[in-house]
Amino acid sequence: MSGSDPAKNWFRCSDRERAAFEAGIKMGSIYHQYVGAPVNELNVEALERAIEAGARVQPFVDDVRVRIDRSKIKAKRGAPYKYYSVTGDMLDVWLRVRYEGATAECRMEYVPELRYPLMRIADLREG
Amino acid sequence: MSGSDPAKNWFRCSDRERAAFEAGIKMGSIYHQYVGAPVNELNVEALERAIEAGARVQPFVDDVRVRIDRSKIKAKRGAPYKYYSVTGDMLDVWLRVRYEGATAECRMEYVPELRYPLMRIADLREG
Amino acid sequence: MSGSDPAKNWFRCSDRERAAFEAGIKMGSIYHQYVGAPVNELNVEALERAIEAGARVQPFVDDVRVRIDRSKIKAKRGAPYKYYSVTGDMLDVWLRVRYEGATAECRMEYVPELRYPLMRIADLREG
Amino acid sequence: MSGSDPAKNWFRCSDRERAAFEAGIKMGSIYHQYVGAPVNELNVEALERAIEAGARVQPFVDDVRVRIDRSKIKAKRGAPYKYYSVTGDMLDVWLRVRYEGATAECRMEYVPELRYPLMRIADLREG
Repeated sequence: MSGSDPAKNWFRCSDRERAAFEAGIKMGSIYHQYVGAPVNELNVEALERAIEAGARVQPFVDDVRVRIDRSKIKAKRGAPYKYYSVTGDMLDVWLRVRYEGATAECRMEYVPELRYPLMRIADLREG
Repeated sequence: MSGSDPAKNWFRCSDRERAAFEAGIKMGSIYHQYVGAPVNELNVEALERAIEAGARVQPFVDDVRVRIDRSKIKAKRGAPYKYYSVTGDMLDVWLRVRYEGATAECRMEYVPELRYPLMRIADLREG
Repeated sequence: MSGSDPAKNWFRCSDRERAAFEAGIKMGSIYHQYVGAPVNELNVEALERAIEAGARVQPFVDDVRVRIDRSKIKAKRGAPYKYYSVTGDMLDVWLRVRYEGATAECRMEYVPELRYPLMRIADLREG
Repeated sequence: MSGSDPAKNWFRCSDRERAAFEAGIKMGSIYHQYVGAPVNELNVEALERAIEAGARVQPFVDDVRVRIDRSKIKAKRGAPYKYYSVTGDMLDVWLRVRYEGATAECRMEYVPELRYPLMRIADLREG
């Protein structure tokens, strides 16, 4: 985005809160858009790069890294058809959003203690 | 959720910022989960109720209302097969998240001036 | 659909083959549209009914029944957030397509021997 | 797939009908998995390649080509945020399935006369 945000007047929150909101949107988008996609060792990298490239065109995304856990793909070996569906516990995502004066870094990763693919804010700061 | 959040220690942000992040997740989830679903006048209400019921089981969702724009469904009449796919511009969502001491109200709706299905924070407050 | 299929001339196959093709489309649609949706005991029935209602508005669907395996939802109990994402192995779908002179009955269900949520044609006949 | 299909006994249909069914599954999968994904000129090619790579890992897919209509992306220019969501009318897919003695070629493309993104069997043959 060059220039200021054309939608700013629609919001009732600070820049930091907006950065947190935008980060949450992207996390929810990635999970719900790509869970279910067919994946195995042959296409996993193309899928990772496409998820990253898709996130980069969304507003305020400054950087992103997506990794799909190959060990979880391998664990399913032995099924007759050699591919699987992306599940939330396979996704490891790091994403940085910049909204005007604020930066949010967030992460999606499976947390064994919570038995849950947690989306979380790892850092949120001015500048 | 009764009791406190078991994942709180993974986050580096205030309750208000967390409420904004959680609200963003749910907005992104609804859009990317249900866009593409088949819809016409016969199933639109079942789909609205299912989207709402799905949002209510997600963490920290306090209330939600989903409406799919029937006028946009009708505008497509005349096609030989009498149904369409949900598109983002049909979705009108209001959702309230409570995270401990903070409440976020957010909205997804098509904004003609922006030509965009804007997800926004309409209110964010303590309590 | 009342009357004949407006798209018939675009196809190069028999009515039975067309019924099989249309049945496959609906199976793929249900899986890839709804896998990932949030679900627990509270919204599972609303989701089942919405998936069925969505399938019924698609062309040539004569009848459909969707069941999401509650035992697989229960097996995940204990996680801190009390909901899960729909996975392919939870889906049990029966669907009947009629295309002019042909009827296809198909099924999606997890087959433990194959470790796979198999979509299959259970019956395909004239009439 | 090397060797014969481990699931063959679950089916009640000919090889040609099976090829048609499998082709339908893949068409429905592509549509409902990727509609909604964020896209503009910068990531369109990565997305096309990822959809193709994902189709290739699914059973019985022999070849596939995916193209997302850049003119429809351009037509939306002027919105403040410079990306869009994939819609069904942007998708142009050609896919060939081989199932034992049968080959199905199918196509998904927007048909203006039908105002519909038609999925169809373009050819179905022995061998």
